Amino acid sequence: MPLLVMKFGGTSVADLGRIKNAALKVKREVERGYDVIVIVSAMSGKTNELVGWVEQTSPLFDAREYDAVVSSGENVTAGLMALTLQEMDIPARSWQGWQVPIQTTSAHSAARFVDIPRENIDAKFAEGFKVAVVAGFQGVSPEGRITTLGRGGSDTTAVAFAAAFGAERCDIYTDVDGVYTTDPRITSKARKLEKIAFEEMLELASLGAKVLQTRSVELAMRYKVRLRVLSSFEDTDENSGTLVCDEDEIMESKAVSGVAYSRDEAKMTLVKVQDRPGIAAAIFGPLAEAGVNVDMIVQNISELADGGAYTDMTFSCPTNQVMRAQKAMEDARASGAVNYSDLVVDTDVAKISVVGIGMRSHAGVAATMFKALAAENINIKVITTSEIKISVLVDRKYMELAVQALHDAFQLEKA
Amino acid sequence: MPLLVMKFGGTSVADLGRIKNAALKVKREVERGYDVIVIVSAMSGKTNELVGWVEQTSPLFDAREYDAVVSSGENVTAGLMALTLQEMDIPARSWQGWQVPIQTTSAHSAARFVDIPRENIDAKFAEGFKVAVVAGFQGVSPEGRITTLGRGGSDTTAVAFAAAFGAERCDIYTDVDGVYTTDPRITSKARKLEKIAFEEMLELASLGAKVLQTRSVELAMRYKVRLRVLSSFEDTDENSGTLVCDEDEIMESKAVSGVAYSRDEAKMTLVKVQDRPGIAAAIFGPLAEAGVNVDMIVQNISELADGGAYTDMTFSCPTNQVMRAQKAMEDARASGAVNYSDLVVDTDVAKISVVGIGMRSHAGVAATMFKALAAENINIKVITTSEIKISVLVDRKYMELAVQALHDAFQLEKA
Repeated sequence: MPLLVMKFGGTSVADLGRIKNAALKVKREVERGYDVIVIVSAMSGKTNELVGWVEQTSPLFDAREYDAVVSSGENVTAGLMALTLQEMDIPARSWQGWQVPIQTTSAHSAARFVDIPRENIDAKFAEGFKVAVVAGFQGVSPEGRITTLGRGGSDTTAVAFAAAFGAERCDIYTDVDGVYTTDPRITSKARKLEKIAFEEMLELASLGAKVLQTRSVELAMRYKVRLRVLSSFEDTDENSGTLVCDEDEIMESKAVSGVAYSRDEAKMTLVKVQDRPGIAAAIFGPLAEAGVNVDMIVQNISELADGGAYTDMTFSCPTNQVMRAQKAMEDARASGAVNYSDLVVDTDVAKISVVGIGMRSHAGVAATMFKALAAENINIKVITTSEIKISVLVDRKYMELAVQALHDAFQLEKA
Repeated sequence: MPLLVMKFGGTSVADLGRIKNAALKVKREVERGYDVIVIVSAMSGKTNELVGWVEQTSPLFDAREYDAVVSSGENVTAGLMALTLQEMDIPARSWQGWQVPIQTTSAHSAARFVDIPRENIDAKFAEGFKVAVVAGFQGVSPEGRITTLGRGGSDTTAVAFAAAFGAERCDIYTDVDGVYTTDPRITSKARKLEKIAFEEMLELASLGAKVLQTRSVELAMRYKVRLRVLSSFEDTDENSGTLVCDEDEIMESKAVSGVAYSRDEAKMTLVKVQDRPGIAAAIFGPLAEAGVNVDMIVQNISELADGGAYTDMTFSCPTNQVMRAQKAMEDARASGAVNYSDLVVDTDVAKISVVGIGMRSHAGVAATMFKALAAENINIKVITTSEIKISVLVDRKYMELAVQALHDAFQLEKA
């Protein structure tokens, strides 16, 4: 029997009416002849309520108890979804993580999958069940404690089940109807993509397009799970939404597929750092230990002055980590590990990126990008590139303008 | 290490402040040198919310899914209680039913305990944990599905753990401060009992005194678990509340310990039933099948008339089961199984009972009771007796008066 995985997020199961709406989508696939594994999130708001209680009770909480409490939201939805399907005469049952059992590491609140054994669920499909409703976001540790995967883990659960059960496809139902060339709130020219390659989606996910969780895309890429992103709130068919797939499935080869942005970036520059072998490690080691997610790094060429070699080191990180980064650098200077004359912080920047696997074979993408920004008099503060993306930092006030200019320059409104 | 079981009901853990208050009571016992097993209910209102969702989703719900959904309330409280204790530097962890594992029958929503293995929790006590916080009201079936024990099952969970772990005592913290000679709302002379025998508590529990669930008292009696009922909302010490214990522990031997009442009783009389061997079975069989909980039964002596033997058969049942009982009797008449001339229903009655193990050795309790009611001109409609209780049905308008008169007649205000 062909098998589908269907995942419904918190807004898609926010109340009993929406759960019923989601169940109707499951029913349609069952009628088409699929066995279905449904992955559900907690009803929207529930997880926040539970997290709030835990944090109020114990600010430095025991993550094992956090997981035991917070995972209950998904269990409720799973039971209600199974009941809703039963009311539609579809043989269905709910599965909590420990019943599958979804085996994870012991890293509570940030656990990773170890194994998803198929035996228990396969046995129920063999008995005639058509749908297994699995509580997302959770698993069980080797010690028999409940674990969670961290926020957004339900997407990852869905992809992991699709991989484990060899699903034909993994459909992620959410509150948007697909992946767009850029955020439609910034330009009405934004166009929904029919298909996008895993690598592109991965860059877009990590660059701030909040449609899919990065980890779920990584996992899908590794196991070649075809992912479809589509809307819970519209009538959908087999052509709806956006398919995230292997690049071999994509015929068109535009240089750029999308423009992403990230508003909450800060730029920090260590001025006149004494340059020596190992200086980068001396800077970025303490930042990593302080939990700062450094993104872009630029090192200027070294200059000789005052009898030594000096450089400026610039990096970016999320705005809310600036305080931590500053403290880590001041401590490093106090301990003598790093010498610098000044630490310049600019929290008023945004990151703009163009992404596309076609970039590999199309020359001149960077030139087009820089020309388009220059035409709008937007100054570029930092540039980094990877094989399939080019990112720049600009003043935040130019963010929307930059996105629009690049969307036009690469003609993304055209299919 | 001596061990206590402490149980906190829904109102005792209704919010984070009350959970903290409950945790302070646990802390006190730990400081006295006890290992403690804490049994928690769902935060008050939560179970009703979950039940409401299930019933709205599926009026004739799959009880396995009902249990999976509804049990989540206790899991949340267990985690929050463990975190609260940890904040007080008490080594504690939460246990969901399947983690213990609490083994029950497969009778979902009304499961019974099969076994509570000690190994897992004992191992944690041996590691230095002082408190095991167990989610009440739930267990796991032989098929690995979550079960619940039915409403009020947390009391039963507490007693079962006390029996399994040989606890010194099982303290039931609730919103009243003990068991009273009668309902203090009916007479201010009502007196809190220091001790009460299991058998008496059992009669009181099933007669409408809602302090403890009947099943939990039965279980406590069978395993000789000393139960203490006391208030969550007052400062308590080792002498607070009421101890429910074996009658050997009770020195005083008053004839009557308490007066109970039940408002929602109905009296039904089958008039002129054709009397023959097996007629009682022919009546009460169909009533049982229809789910009618028949309480008192009175059969008048048989009379000879119209060439046959006839009798009147009177029984009582909860008011909300009268319709069902009527239909069962009409069906029985239609099928020819039972012949009667009329079915008289009186839904305007109340049941008053006096209970006391001393009754066994004290003569004249019934006479005192009937004299006290006669002195107030209260007509007795039906009488039934057991070894340790006498119950009467009276017009409901006399209910409070009857309770007060009996409380006075047996001088229950005196210790």
